[in-house]
Amino acid sequence: MERILINTVEKYIGDSVMIAGFVQTIRDQGSITFLLVRDVSGIIQIVITKDKKEALEMAGALSLESVIQISGLAKAEKQAPGGFEIAADTIAVLSRAEPELPIPVVEKAQEETDPFIRMDWRWIDLRKHKYALVFKVWTLMEQAFREYWIERGYIEIHSPKLIATASESGAEVFEVKYFDRKAYLAQSPQFYKQMAMAAGFERVFEVGPVFRAEPSFTSRHATEFVGYDTELSYIRSHHDVMEEEEKTIQHVIQRVKEKYGDEIAKTYGRDVVMPSLPFPKISMKETKKILAGMGVSSEKESDISPEEERNISEYAKEKYGHEFVFITDYPIEARPFYHMRDEENPRLTKSFDLLWNGLEVTTGAQREHRYEVLTAQAKEKGMNIESLQFYLNFFKYGCPPHGGYGMGPNRMVMQLLGLDSIRDASFVYRGVKRLEP
Amino acid sequence: MERILINTVEKYIGDSVMIAGFVQTIRDQGSITFLLVRDVSGIIQIVITKDKKEALEMAGALSLESVIQISGLAKAEKQAPGGFEIAADTIAVLSRAEPELPIPVVEKAQEETDPFIRMDWRWIDLRKHKYALVFKVWTLMEQAFREYWIERGYIEIHSPKLIATASESGAEVFEVKYFDRKAYLAQSPQFYKQMAMAAGFERVFEVGPVFRAEPSFTSRHATEFVGYDTELSYIRSHHDVMEEEEKTIQHVIQRVKEKYGDEIAKTYGRDVVMPSLPFPKISMKETKKILAGMGVSSEKESDISPEEERNISEYAKEKYGHEFVFITDYPIEARPFYHMRDEENPRLTKSFDLLWNGLEVTTGAQREHRYEVLTAQAKEKGMNIESLQFYLNFFKYGCPPHGGYGMGPNRMVMQLLGLDSIRDASFVYRGVKRLEP
Repeated sequence: MERILINTVEKYIGDSVMIAGFVQTIRDQGSITFLLVRDVSGIIQIVITKDKKEALEMAGALSLESVIQISGLAKAEKQAPGGFEIAADTIAVLSRAEPELPIPVVEKAQEETDPFIRMDWRWIDLRKHKYALVFKVWTLMEQAFREYWIERGYIEIHSPKLIATASESGAEVFEVKYFDRKAYLAQSPQFYKQMAMAAGFERVFEVGPVFRAEPSFTSRHATEFVGYDTELSYIRSHHDVMEEEEKTIQHVIQRVKEKYGDEIAKTYGRDVVMPSLPFPKISMKETKKILAGMGVSSEKESDISPEEERNISEYAKEKYGHEFVFITDYPIEARPFYHMRDEENPRLTKSFDLLWNGLEVTTGAQREHRYEVLTAQAKEKGMNIESLQFYLNFFKYGCPPHGGYGMGPNRMVMQLLGLDSIRDASFVYRGVKRLEP
Repeated sequence: MERILINTVEKYIGDSVMIAGFVQTIRDQGSITFLLVRDVSGIIQIVITKDKKEALEMAGALSLESVIQISGLAKAEKQAPGGFEIAADTIAVLSRAEPELPIPVVEKAQEETDPFIRMDWRWIDLRKHKYALVFKVWTLMEQAFREYWIERGYIEIHSPKLIATASESGAEVFEVKYFDRKAYLAQSPQFYKQMAMAAGFERVFEVGPVFRAEPSFTSRHATEFVGYDTELSYIRSHHDVMEEEEKTIQHVIQRVKEKYGDEIAKTYGRDVVMPSLPFPKISMKETKKILAGMGVSSEKESDISPEEERNISEYAKEKYGHEFVFITDYPIEARPFYHMRDEENPRLTKSFDLLWNGLEVTTGAQREHRYEVLTAQAKEKGMNIESLQFYLNFFKYGCPPHGGYGMGPNRMVMQLLGLDSIRDASFVYRGVKRLEP
């Protein structure tokens, strides 16, 4: 007999079926035992009556979270959770769980396990519907991004994570022993997606890990996370990049809402809101004025703090009824050397961040593609020209004007579901003190 | 005016259009100049006549591979390559290339650039149609794999590449300075896709970089490449995994053949062949017998060499008319501790490799999911149990039987197009002596 998924039992009422999954609860009433068994698709009640002696014995010896296979009759049963049950004929144990679980799978209200202990036992934690749901939604979200990109002729690249040069953004990098020399882990595929523009690929995307050796201990930071990166040629300004990004995000949110909107609402109480186009755009200069008007004090003139991000997002939500807001035209102090500068006001870059409900989810810009200008900007920023030469060379032999953005899908998923921490939005989290499991 | 792609000019005959791209050739005939301009979609002839004085002057000062934007009239023109041309009104230079190119974009026959020099200038090398085609095919190939997986309910995971334990397979690993301790770069997502099985995800896939600190200098090896990994729960044996894999590959090859079959044939002279199901399967024991019968000497009893792989592939092609062949049931000496052993013959593992035209493209197996058996096998293989404990724990609290495979898409693309070297199947290649660009 072929195993069927629990959420398809409905189609087999009156038939003999086989299911398999984890034993979530055991209720032994002497002559009858009820189990709840869970697979990736759902949960079903198993009833074992005293005439099924062998099965009843087997059930009596079960431990919670053991993996079993059940054959029996599929029935409609009003009293059962979900409305169906299986009257077991046979039970086989595929994997026996130790009787003491380190963390519970079914948590009682007000008794949620400490998040750091949950991380130690991540694979048990992920058995809970609400945490597994994160990765089902992620799977669809990523597919929806790729649908948009591929329909529009983007080429996928996988750029190297082992690189020879320590830093492009000034952020801290991890050092790797690479045979008889040193290598570093890429903080972003920035240089390589620009290389693809110099190669004439015109539109590319990359999905891959990025590494940041920063001793951050916030709920938004990790030392390793996933990056979605795109780059587009023949743009006229960073506004073309923003326009492309907002259309992409609208497509993605529509797909997620269609498939998981109800489940997200039920599980997290979060209403997935379809964003309208265009997204609101506020320049950095205007942002600072608005924040001053709101009485929010400014830490830095050239950049905005997480606190300011939350406030300007609140403002955009009230004023435009929009969860998203682009902050544009950052001063050059806040941006890396390769961001193109504004022709009218060379103290500003043709750049943007995208905030979603107060959290930065994207950084983007038009890039400087003119070799001499780029080299001058790198020098001005005090970069080591020699170690950058391999990158500067990309722009010596013809390169279209281009721009792009880097997005954090861990943060996207946090905002889609309303998660408090990036830890729950990472399959396995990595932090300064966290290399296991 | 909106820029259009060169391969759409056909639709605009008689209209004013704007295109942009790299200058591939310049033919100055005094009162008239012809250019060939290339974008991501194709190549078109631009004609500049003497009445367009400014444009003619501009064209006279162009260097090869500069990026320009042309506005003018779209025309059908039999004599032009492709059958169309644009009579330029205006030309604007978007990026000026240095007059001396380090490697040619248009190579003359018998004068192909040395492959190691080509790598130094990878972004210029990738301007050649035949090398860019690799990544257009890759984009479709990867999307086709994902289509198959996602339609069948696989969950996508992104597992950490920074890990605490040096090795799972015995292969060499890269060491990373991780704050006040050491970390290592993952050689495969093996442990983490198994963790997903313990979490109840049932079917997962991962696409991501894998790292091998092996001093290999062959045309099939790299220190960093891309891995496609899947894992499936509730399998009965490794045969279920092979069956799933061959169906996946058939779907992928069909999609590639439909979209790029003609272009691959034209560019590489390689006929993309639809593989029939099931793929031939030959046990290791039988393989050795067949090879002995063919007079191929055996280097090792427990494994087969690249030379033997080519020979058994030749055999399968002749005998079954099939480009693919699974070699199954490797002896335990040739396989890692976590491969499940055969119940009847415990000297054999429930494992397989998949060869495509003589090249290994996949390794797979059913995994040992029983904690005690797994621990005993690890000890027998001389593994450090303490550093493996985090992994062994995955199997203590219930874990379905499972298996999966790891596939090398760089090698898949090599075989799809008939490339000689993994270097041309890597966007940017990494080898022992190669960290740049």
